[in-house]
Amino acid sequence: MRLFSYQDKNKQKRVGLLRAPDAKEFIDLGATDAALPTSLLEIIETAGAMDRVAQLAKASNAVIQPLAGVNFIPLVDKPSKIICLGLNYADHAAEGGHARPEYPAFFMRGPSSMVGHLAPMIRPKVSDKFDYEAELAFVVGKRARHLTEQNALDYLAGYSAFNDGSLRDYQRKSTQWTIGKNFDGTGAFGPWLVTPDELPRAADGLRIQSRLNGQIMQDANTKNFLWGIVETLVLITECMTLEPGDVVITGTPAGVGYARKPPVFMKQGDTIEIEIDGIGVLSNPVSDEV
Amino acid sequence: MRLFSYQDKNKQKRVGLLRAPDAKEFIDLGATDAALPTSLLEIIETAGAMDRVAQLAKASNAVIQPLAGVNFIPLVDKPSKIICLGLNYADHAAEGGHARPEYPAFFMRGPSSMVGHLAPMIRPKVSDKFDYEAELAFVVGKRARHLTEQNALDYLAGYSAFNDGSLRDYQRKSTQWTIGKNFDGTGAFGPWLVTPDELPRAADGLRIQSRLNGQIMQDANTKNFLWGIVETLVLITECMTLEPGDVVITGTPAGVGYARKPPVFMKQGDTIEIEIDGIGVLSNPVSDEV
Repeated sequence: MRLFSYQDKNKQKRVGLLRAPDAKEFIDLGATDAALPTSLLEIIETAGAMDRVAQLAKASNAVIQPLAGVNFIPLVDKPSKIICLGLNYADHAAEGGHARPEYPAFFMRGPSSMVGHLAPMIRPKVSDKFDYEAELAFVVGKRARHLTEQNALDYLAGYSAFNDGSLRDYQRKSTQWTIGKNFDGTGAFGPWLVTPDELPRAADGLRIQSRLNGQIMQDANTKNFLWGIVETLVLITECMTLEPGDVVITGTPAGVGYARKPPVFMKQGDTIEIEIDGIGVLSNPVSDEV
Repeated sequence: MRLFSYQDKNKQKRVGLLRAPDAKEFIDLGATDAALPTSLLEIIETAGAMDRVAQLAKASNAVIQPLAGVNFIPLVDKPSKIICLGLNYADHAAEGGHARPEYPAFFMRGPSSMVGHLAPMIRPKVSDKFDYEAELAFVVGKRARHLTEQNALDYLAGYSAFNDGSLRDYQRKSTQWTIGKNFDGTGAFGPWLVTPDELPRAADGLRIQSRLNGQIMQDANTKNFLWGIVETLVLITECMTLEPGDVVITGTPAGVGYARKPPVFMKQGDTIEIEIDGIGVLSNPVSDEV
């Protein structure tokens, strides 16, 4: 299944379901079943709700809407945690001058940093060092602590794409990257949640790209993760509880803008796309902060 | 005013109000006015609710309960962001071998890392390097972006204490401290929210201590902040929107356990207290993860 979050004309949160990857229409889940929670986070949190969604995907009375003009919001807009891995591809670690790491660099983003598919990513007034980072994201489906290699994948709700937009100067104002990763409207998340049954086990072997104004900037494959999805789940839940709806983004490969010679940064009028095999294209225009 | 969050016998969230710093009883706000939101976060988020609480503080028909035996939960248990400053006292930067910083080191904690006043702080199975950090916390009262030195303090709901418990080995597994700051049950937050009118402007000049089993480990004063409350609010909101209920913890002074010779770490059976002038004592036993 492919599920997405959007806002209707009354600014109410809603959830849509695509019947096929290239569908031009979607099932309006709330209009089809008014008893279903109205946000994707609540659907993930509510026992049985995802099973109900699977039934509605096949329902003959489903309410259909055109996909064109939908106002996407971040796939999960208020997760309790957004956990980010740094340096999870050896080539990206190398381009930043880092040794091959022995443990992932973890940091967090806050909900205020996110935008949805097709919404502008915002270059703030105070920096012109706005960089893209193509990342595979996963969303936690069940409360999880001390997962093992055997059971980790049972705790996933699905996968999506994330553009971990970064202000490189702020990222390096101290040793801690967090502030450069938390400007308003710099992290794009979507377009849809793809359930694990639609993808290879642990989302392995997926090509992942970023394209800036159509030019390929990053072109890698999730088979080159230093820590795959299973290992990442085991490492994180060794330390903390993951809650339903928590988001983990899995690091970016080589090709980011700041490491290029000369450097390339995003500016007003640009279009940045993240494409991941089997998931789709997360596309965002870039706008200056007003 | 002094407000706190607790859980009743039916595991429902409730908010209490102390009439005096050393009161032995409190006003059960939900029992006094059933129309009031039942969590402190919602009271902060809801227009007019804090004014209503101020009225109830003087109400003759207030429902009074004994403070003894109250089951405190984290003061704000599900904020959208918990933003932490590192190295905000020059002496603590020096004891860790850091140069006097030119910009704060920011990182984040997640809600799953928190416990309330009197609840056990949890030393995980995988580490025996569990350290305390006494910190002044503040809670955001209104949506805030691009604050100025002139208006920053208007956006505060109040102050409290935080023990930014840290697993020092995990904190240093990579360059990013986040994972060592996010183990379940390692960050204590409370006991109460003290509204700004009860404290000096910008909480300046407050003595802050940690005591491990009664022995003073940290003993400093908020007048020695490198970045005070106003500067911190201006710096953060240059980058991102602070939401009502968001929590900022302002860094710890010298005297932490890992920098001592020999090092001192917390273990099962210990009691760790954070005391801040005008706020009170945040006290927690330490327990091993079960």
